[in-house]
Amino acid sequence: MEQENREIEEITIKDIARMCGVGVSTVSRAINNHPDINPETKQKVMDIIQKYGYIPNNSARYLKRMDGKCIAVLVKGLTNPFFAGAIKVMEDEIKKKKYSMVIRHVESDEDEVDVALELVKEKRLAGLIFLGGHFVHSEEKLSKLRIPFILSTVGEGPDGIRHDNYSTLSVDDEKEGYRMTDYLIRLGHRKIAVLAAGKEDVSIGRMRLMGYLRALREQGIEPDEGLICYMNPKLPSYSMENGYVLTRQLLDEGKEFTAVFAFSDTMAVGACRAIAEAGKRIPQDYSVAGFDGIELCSYYNPTLTTIRQPIQEIAEESVHHLFDLLDGKSSHQHKIFPGELLEQESTRAL
Amino acid sequence: MEQENREIEEITIKDIARMCGVGVSTVSRAINNHPDINPETKQKVMDIIQKYGYIPNNSARYLKRMDGKCIAVLVKGLTNPFFAGAIKVMEDEIKKKKYSMVIRHVESDEDEVDVALELVKEKRLAGLIFLGGHFVHSEEKLSKLRIPFILSTVGEGPDGIRHDNYSTLSVDDEKEGYRMTDYLIRLGHRKIAVLAAGKEDVSIGRMRLMGYLRALREQGIEPDEGLICYMNPKLPSYSMENGYVLTRQLLDEGKEFTAVFAFSDTMAVGACRAIAEAGKRIPQDYSVAGFDGIELCSYYNPTLTTIRQPIQEIAEESVHHLFDLLDGKSSHQHKIFPGELLEQESTRAL
Repeated sequence: MEQENREIEEITIKDIARMCGVGVSTVSRAINNHPDINPETKQKVMDIIQKYGYIPNNSARYLKRMDGKCIAVLVKGLTNPFFAGAIKVMEDEIKKKKYSMVIRHVESDEDEVDVALELVKEKRLAGLIFLGGHFVHSEEKLSKLRIPFILSTVGEGPDGIRHDNYSTLSVDDEKEGYRMTDYLIRLGHRKIAVLAAGKEDVSIGRMRLMGYLRALREQGIEPDEGLICYMNPKLPSYSMENGYVLTRQLLDEGKEFTAVFAFSDTMAVGACRAIAEAGKRIPQDYSVAGFDGIELCSYYNPTLTTIRQPIQEIAEESVHHLFDLLDGKSSHQHKIFPGELLEQESTRAL
Repeated sequence: MEQENREIEEITIKDIARMCGVGVSTVSRAINNHPDINPETKQKVMDIIQKYGYIPNNSARYLKRMDGKCIAVLVKGLTNPFFAGAIKVMEDEIKKKKYSMVIRHVESDEDEVDVALELVKEKRLAGLIFLGGHFVHSEEKLSKLRIPFILSTVGEGPDGIRHDNYSTLSVDDEKEGYRMTDYLIRLGHRKIAVLAAGKEDVSIGRMRLMGYLRALREQGIEPDEGLICYMNPKLPSYSMENGYVLTRQLLDEGKEFTAVFAFSDTMAVGACRAIAEAGKRIPQDYSVAGFDGIELCSYYNPTLTTIRQPIQEIAEESVHHLFDLLDGKSSHQHKIFPGELLEQESTRAL
């Protein structure tokens, strides 16, 4: 087997031994810090190893040390500032555990579980964290992922099925969508446009929309299909550009509304720009609200009202929980974190 | 050697062979897609392999396939939206070459070359791209990195030394710093506050500052030390918060100025917020300009004047050049890309 598969010109332990004029077992003792070796010989071996860049690659020990202690974070939407802070926290926490971390960006048209299966094969991961994304996969497919994995910032979804083969740590997107809509209604808004996820979305976007609809209905407001704007699938998901294009369309079509609830802060920023370009003011002419609570909300002009997700806490607990799973200290769980309504300058009472 | 280092309970090719009731060479033929194997036997072997998650880990072929074809991208400032677009482009280009990509975040207090040396050891990389950062390292230290590497978006620095052991692809930061300052002077501004990098910076921040000073002096304006604001080292580098705090300080101290030139768009956004909070308007009371050309510049209120770096092009060419180096088709080079002055709403003529 070893011989059959040698396809590359790679320096071997035998080459090192020959160059040093010692036996293979001596080289092995040098590498493994074995006490039973002459210090000068050891130095000579290590010098040659360094010079030729030899890596003891065919030992299981090497693979275990290098690949086994690795956690992968698969990010759907790497350019989303909402995730940037989470990645940093996860990296810190994973480092504390003396594991290494691999970040992998998942394209919006890629299947994250396929990407994960490939990564597991390549990197021999200990565990996986999915950050963001639309998580709708068959139990059968998920069962192929034979390492512990966690969904961070994404909940179980609207299918009502209880998943016990993975964990989720997130806000309750339906409840938070309701919270913001209810807040806008209490401010006196009845015509609330919503910048939603894609029409086919069955993940967080769908949950937030369900919350929006429930809030309207509870207050006796009939939802207006014309005010539900689904993201343009040809533009980046949850992007400023998407929010801009959708809002511009609403304004161009002369739709009547007094508030815009965007399902991400970045889309809310795009909405604000479209409104400003139309010569209208926020919040005097239109109230605008976002979702996520990214840093920009406090620096935009005007500052943006939003639902703040406790992203640092979610990220930290995601890593801790993953290690509890690895250590057998915990089983899979679905933890809900409360969001927080951040009232800023972009919304006003009618 | 193989025996000595077996520290983990790992399924081996022998175990697979035993479970299938075939010889090791048959398992090997199945794995390697050898034609000389009964299809049914092959299926059986592959089923068992899949069931037990066996990876032919002790073969050089495996290591070459999995680790040798990997490019690492080390990002200083992962949360910086300026880099987010670059990472996506690099990932796409690297994927086209059928290599895998590892992203590693470098903390602002970490030494990127130390991080790189560690990664090279762990992952057996083919090449490295440093994205961003302060690149000041001794030739001796750099020589330890025995794989081709590239600095993307960071030039050679102000030391005047020609580096021929690595490549750089970037704008000319001195020239672009000059370009923006000269533009503001031509608009009639003479008291131009600058939100610079850290005081000790000897990388892109220093270069931009040199350009700023040259533009002032060429127009006969004596630089005012009180208008040169160095980033607070306790706050995240080039962040909105840093720009906000510096500008607020300028305003609180009653410093006289009519324009702010921030060395990143994110700092410019912080400056805008501080000015708005002080009840002043942009550009009527203060002109504000940034650097980088991130997407937000076109969505902020007002839209931000900036130096647009051709980040997509730099990222794409960085990957292409790295592969040219790997293929022996090119030697190291220092390529300069032109920046572009993007005039938007945040600046005005006095």
